[in-house]
Amino acid sequence: MYFLGVDGGGTKCRARLVAEDGRVLGEGLSQTANVTAGVEKSFNAIMASVEAAVAKAGLDSRIYPDCVAGCGIAGANIQDLKAALTAMPFPFRKVSLESDAYAAWLGAHHPDDGAILIAGTGSAGFARIGERIKTLGGWGFAVSDSGSGAHMGQRLIRTALLCHERIRPASELTEKVMARFGSDPQALVAWSETALPRDYAAFAPMVVAAAQRDDPVGQEILAESLKEIEELLLALSNLGAQRICLLGGLSEIYVPLLSADIRSLLVEPRTDAMGGAIIMARGALEDAGRSDAGKLDAGKLDAGKSDAGDSGAGGA
Amino acid sequence: MYFLGVDGGGTKCRARLVAEDGRVLGEGLSQTANVTAGVEKSFNAIMASVEAAVAKAGLDSRIYPDCVAGCGIAGANIQDLKAALTAMPFPFRKVSLESDAYAAWLGAHHPDDGAILIAGTGSAGFARIGERIKTLGGWGFAVSDSGSGAHMGQRLIRTALLCHERIRPASELTEKVMARFGSDPQALVAWSETALPRDYAAFAPMVVAAAQRDDPVGQEILAESLKEIEELLLALSNLGAQRICLLGGLSEIYVPLLSADIRSLLVEPRTDAMGGAIIMARGALEDAGRSDAGKLDAGKLDAGKSDAGDSGAGGA
Repeated sequence: MYFLGVDGGGTKCRARLVAEDGRVLGEGLSQTANVTAGVEKSFNAIMASVEAAVAKAGLDSRIYPDCVAGCGIAGANIQDLKAALTAMPFPFRKVSLESDAYAAWLGAHHPDDGAILIAGTGSAGFARIGERIKTLGGWGFAVSDSGSGAHMGQRLIRTALLCHERIRPASELTEKVMARFGSDPQALVAWSETALPRDYAAFAPMVVAAAQRDDPVGQEILAESLKEIEELLLALSNLGAQRICLLGGLSEIYVPLLSADIRSLLVEPRTDAMGGAIIMARGALEDAGRSDAGKLDAGKLDAGKSDAGDSGAGGA
Repeated sequence: MYFLGVDGGGTKCRARLVAEDGRVLGEGLSQTANVTAGVEKSFNAIMASVEAAVAKAGLDSRIYPDCVAGCGIAGANIQDLKAALTAMPFPFRKVSLESDAYAAWLGAHHPDDGAILIAGTGSAGFARIGERIKTLGGWGFAVSDSGSGAHMGQRLIRTALLCHERIRPASELTEKVMARFGSDPQALVAWSETALPRDYAAFAPMVVAAAQRDDPVGQEILAESLKEIEELLLALSNLGAQRICLLGGLSEIYVPLLSADIRSLLVEPRTDAMGGAIIMARGALEDAGRSDAGKLDAGKLDAGKSDAGDSGAGGA
């Protein structure tokens, strides 16, 4: 028997193959498996990452019938998409499928209660405290996603334009941004007309690097974003979360900058989202001969949605 | 001889008919004449507003050959669109056509130098100081338009969601916003997926009314927007503008709230955008027998665009 843990996020899909005793045999990588971009595309990305992990282990597809897979897939918090993806012809003995945020949360805290805050291109909080499952934020770039990389990038772009027109004092950072557009606002505006959240988020590393060089604009933007992340962490703590993990591409940036009080709320995740997906897989196997009781946690996610103020998009 | 002044903005098109001695004979109203939405549509909206103004004066289309028209039309800062609209079969003796911002600026200051700041759904500054024409901001919702109604509305929506999830303390205002969406974040998010700047701007009056009722969220959002407008007014002043007019749907809200120093920079517009368009018409008539020297101002607008940092989209 083998276990597969798949973490299918917005930008890439990663798979880990472990033996029954937990030894890691191989890992593989492929493109985004976000199911909102297409069920077949998502299925193919999952299978590509699994194939790579199995090959890395020196094995091949003949082991598939002996594999139990857990998949944490971006977009699988949308019930129709989850059902459609579950119905795809996975060649494994059993498949358990939830959102990538759920897998990350399970990896971070299982078997205890706790919360995660994902800070990447978007942002979203996710907690289980006793019987309650809550999500915070994660409603998307236009109306939510506080402290996300996309917002950091958009703030930078807006400020760079204001500085270019001498409405605010320019800095090395803002001039560097304008230089990317040939110092031509028309080019920047043309870019903005099709820019997606990830295009804005691509500017976040420039903000962080500039802040470290004491660039005043970089420091101001990073401070604003940090304040939003602290606000979300405090809200998770106020919900009663005793263990909080800050995850996602910006987490390493934020952690050392948090106030000591807020940093003291944080713990290290027990394992990563692929590890969380493997916990899902093991749970699915235990359930195989019995009822679906082991899937309780995931079932509660839906139950939580009827509670006003307690639900969210769940992805980041 | 009659003069027509047309102010074709983003939401409506207004026309004024005056006699040779300046007496107002009639005014008319029609739909948006924004030329970016179609040249023929713009032409029809202009003609509908003119027809209404002429009818109000107790006259009819037989006077058209004796009319000289000035048209300030949203989108006419884009040279191709301006050329296409100019080529339409206007039945008037002569037509002078520029952007609506240009007509507003001419009405506000002619024959002196000065600046205008338009604060409505979007925001944009526009100045002539000596030989220099400058625009500030006005690059659109995603990357510019500081202090605009659209940004005020978006801040309100974002904050309402944060309050609904108890990340921030709710207020009467934020609960009122959520009530518009049946207190359902999913409904709000679905709305946001197709929301345009004007849809966000439709929430600005709620911010203003709540701030007047001492709602803390309303006051905070209005204060942020006010700060951005003050920043733009200061930038226009720093360019050397001695006379500045604050125009647009939010101007009446902002003026009494400005700091005394900044308010002291402001003057009342000499006339409105329709009046500015009539000045364009009179200039066009004076030029008719001579060279195009009287169109100098408009010509300089394009010249300004080659100067990095000095140009802008010019509309609001």
